Amino acid sequence: MMFFIVKNNKVLILGGFMIRINENFLNLKDNYLFSTINQKIEQYKKEYPDKKIIRLGIGDVTKPLPFGITKAMEQACMEMNQVETFKGYGPEQGYEFLREKIQQEDYEKKGIQIDKDEIFISDGAKCDTANITDLFANANTVAITDPVYPVYLDSNIIAGRTKIIYLPCTKDNNFVPELPKEKCDIIYLCYPNNPTGTVLTKEQLKIWVNYAKENKAILLFDSAYERYITQDNIPHSIYEIEGAKEIAIEFRSFSKTAGFTGIRCAYAVIPKGLVGYTKQGKEVSINSLWKRRSSCKFNGVSYITQRGAEAIYTEEGQKGIEENIRYYQENAKLLKEGLQEMGYEIYGGVNSPYIWLKIPKSQTSWQFFDELLMKANVVGTPGSGFGPSGEGYFRLTAFGKREEILEAMEKMKRMFE
Amino acid sequence: MMFFIVKNNKVLILGGFMIRINENFLNLKDNYLFSTINQKIEQYKKEYPDKKIIRLGIGDVTKPLPFGITKAMEQACMEMNQVETFKGYGPEQGYEFLREKIQQEDYEKKGIQIDKDEIFISDGAKCDTANITDLFANANTVAITDPVYPVYLDSNIIAGRTKIIYLPCTKDNNFVPELPKEKCDIIYLCYPNNPTGTVLTKEQLKIWVNYAKENKAILLFDSAYERYITQDNIPHSIYEIEGAKEIAIEFRSFSKTAGFTGIRCAYAVIPKGLVGYTKQGKEVSINSLWKRRSSCKFNGVSYITQRGAEAIYTEEGQKGIEENIRYYQENAKLLKEGLQEMGYEIYGGVNSPYIWLKIPKSQTSWQFFDELLMKANVVGTPGSGFGPSGEGYFRLTAFGKREEILEAMEKMKRMFE
Repeated sequence: MMFFIVKNNKVLILGGFMIRINENFLNLKDNYLFSTINQKIEQYKKEYPDKKIIRLGIGDVTKPLPFGITKAMEQACMEMNQVETFKGYGPEQGYEFLREKIQQEDYEKKGIQIDKDEIFISDGAKCDTANITDLFANANTVAITDPVYPVYLDSNIIAGRTKIIYLPCTKDNNFVPELPKEKCDIIYLCYPNNPTGTVLTKEQLKIWVNYAKENKAILLFDSAYERYITQDNIPHSIYEIEGAKEIAIEFRSFSKTAGFTGIRCAYAVIPKGLVGYTKQGKEVSINSLWKRRSSCKFNGVSYITQRGAEAIYTEEGQKGIEENIRYYQENAKLLKEGLQEMGYEIYGGVNSPYIWLKIPKSQTSWQFFDELLMKANVVGTPGSGFGPSGEGYFRLTAFGKREEILEAMEKMKRMFE
Repeated sequence: MMFFIVKNNKVLILGGFMIRINENFLNLKDNYLFSTINQKIEQYKKEYPDKKIIRLGIGDVTKPLPFGITKAMEQACMEMNQVETFKGYGPEQGYEFLREKIQQEDYEKKGIQIDKDEIFISDGAKCDTANITDLFANANTVAITDPVYPVYLDSNIIAGRTKIIYLPCTKDNNFVPELPKEKCDIIYLCYPNNPTGTVLTKEQLKIWVNYAKENKAILLFDSAYERYITQDNIPHSIYEIEGAKEIAIEFRSFSKTAGFTGIRCAYAVIPKGLVGYTKQGKEVSINSLWKRRSSCKFNGVSYITQRGAEAIYTEEGQKGIEENIRYYQENAKLLKEGLQEMGYEIYGGVNSPYIWLKIPKSQTSWQFFDELLMKANVVGTPGSGFGPSGEGYFRLTAFGKREEILEAMEKMKRMFE
């Protein structure tokens, strides 16, 4: 654009074109939710340097990695020091040794047929769920549950998608999203759900699979927490639902199942039969588009990381991660029961590491956050940070250390004494 | 969009909305350049399984990592196995221990003042140079040198930018791009250059810095190969040029300097004074936008990787990587001189691991690729794969093993006997 100024009846050109930013960024909330929380903690620590803060806010794991996994990574480090075993660029899609394990252990053994070239290894489900938006036109209508993991919304805002439909999930509908009245093209579902910790049954998910098929929509299914499911009839994979391979992408992560939040490894499953459409109605393979995107904008995951992820599937690896998961599940149970005893209304925590607490008083969730931080030195996540329907709720995570979970509950008890 | 069919004067609705793909993908060449090359190699290997192929095509390193670096990563693996030292999510921007080293060793010691929070650690310069396009409006005019690293072009095509200006770099202009006649907003410069191996002097770069300042443009400067510079007066960093901090982002990578192609670590420098503009002409900090993007779409680099990158800056690490770089530089010299003896016109190879060979005959660069593969079993990269002005040229990389470099030249000699 040009800038003009009129002076003494003369037009002066002040400047020519200038680099223009993507103004969609200005439609985002000022800060990523968890950055705001961290700022509040830092502020509190400055004012009260002696207070010990218990963090049950960000869903970060605390148990160390099982020995078999770190051993495999150490081995991979050593390989990097020898010319015979040194590895340069790996395949963008991920090493076959890891994709094969995923195919066999996460799908085939559970009766689901997925091809190795339908699996794409990445450095995180956050990146995957955000980057997938590259593949779709801005004309699409996007449906997200509300409350929701902020990344789904923010990545679509950055891309410039304006048709976004919220599907409220509150105690009023038992946290089961209703089918949208408008037609939606892209639907994000995360089950077990972050942040509410709730789940959908096979029958409830089938409704969404049918909707997507009827409407030529695509379901983006985030099952990063599937390992926390304890009850029957709760699908671990969207592909347990008949017909899902025609319409769904599944995102999985090693972060919460294997303690990989600092190691960075996840994967996406994009069935080869999945298609999107051009304006003219021509079918285009989503699997090919993602492959093309990856080869342009990504360069694969560290070899060392992938060897670590492979080791998750050994007997020792499985034993180790199951032990850790049981520990977090026990945390969730303690939190849920303890908070219920205190009189809180609690959702989640049964098939999920997340506790979704109904704030009893006429407080906003940020006010509750502040009160909890000030009076109990406990950090959680305000529900409104996840969307308008999250207002009045509060998320606590079960990934903390046992003694801290217990201490947090003691302190919360004393808050009201 | 809706689909209608008219039958017996009745309008039938065939379908409602359907998920629409990002059709910009259809404007990309069918395959990423290096995927096409790999397919050709696979085809050749199928037909001639006994032939040994020497790969000087993809710029992948072959020397193993120095011991100090793998040792540091092993140490980090072990930390992950102990509850006291286990690391979960790291900062999206990268650990301070690594950003501090970069600030001191790569900039401060070379007389350049960069703040720690102007440095962003990532999993690759490929990702960075592609992802940076998220920050800018599609209205911008983009300038790329021609030939060019395909990622700059492809990532802009995917984003839907249509105003792309090619700056030809051939022997006719001594591989020095001329200032564009049209105003450009985003300018990609990669020096030492991939693929031509040529460089710009301080004076030549100053012209671009001035252009960017005058036109309120942003310079995206890729200096991934700066460690290969052997001559004086060739800037290692764009920030050696006065005023560059106001208009330039610098991308660096550990891939080619420290053998990290399989480990994945790089960084971007985004000065806090760098601004873009809204439609209304309001200034917006690019550093803040990138921070916001990272917190939404990225989750940091593996802790183990960052400890490895940190170890590059120890005395042992520096000694190790310099030895490897010298080895590749010697390869480049051997290639350059050997090919010149054969009568080829050669560019690059002095300040760069890339050799840019002028194809002598009236062959296309893909024909030369095929001939070289068939007759000498040597794989290079056809110049036209990097853009129209790359036609008539061919890229060879110096990252191979010494004995293979020598063998490749022997075979090329015999090609014409």
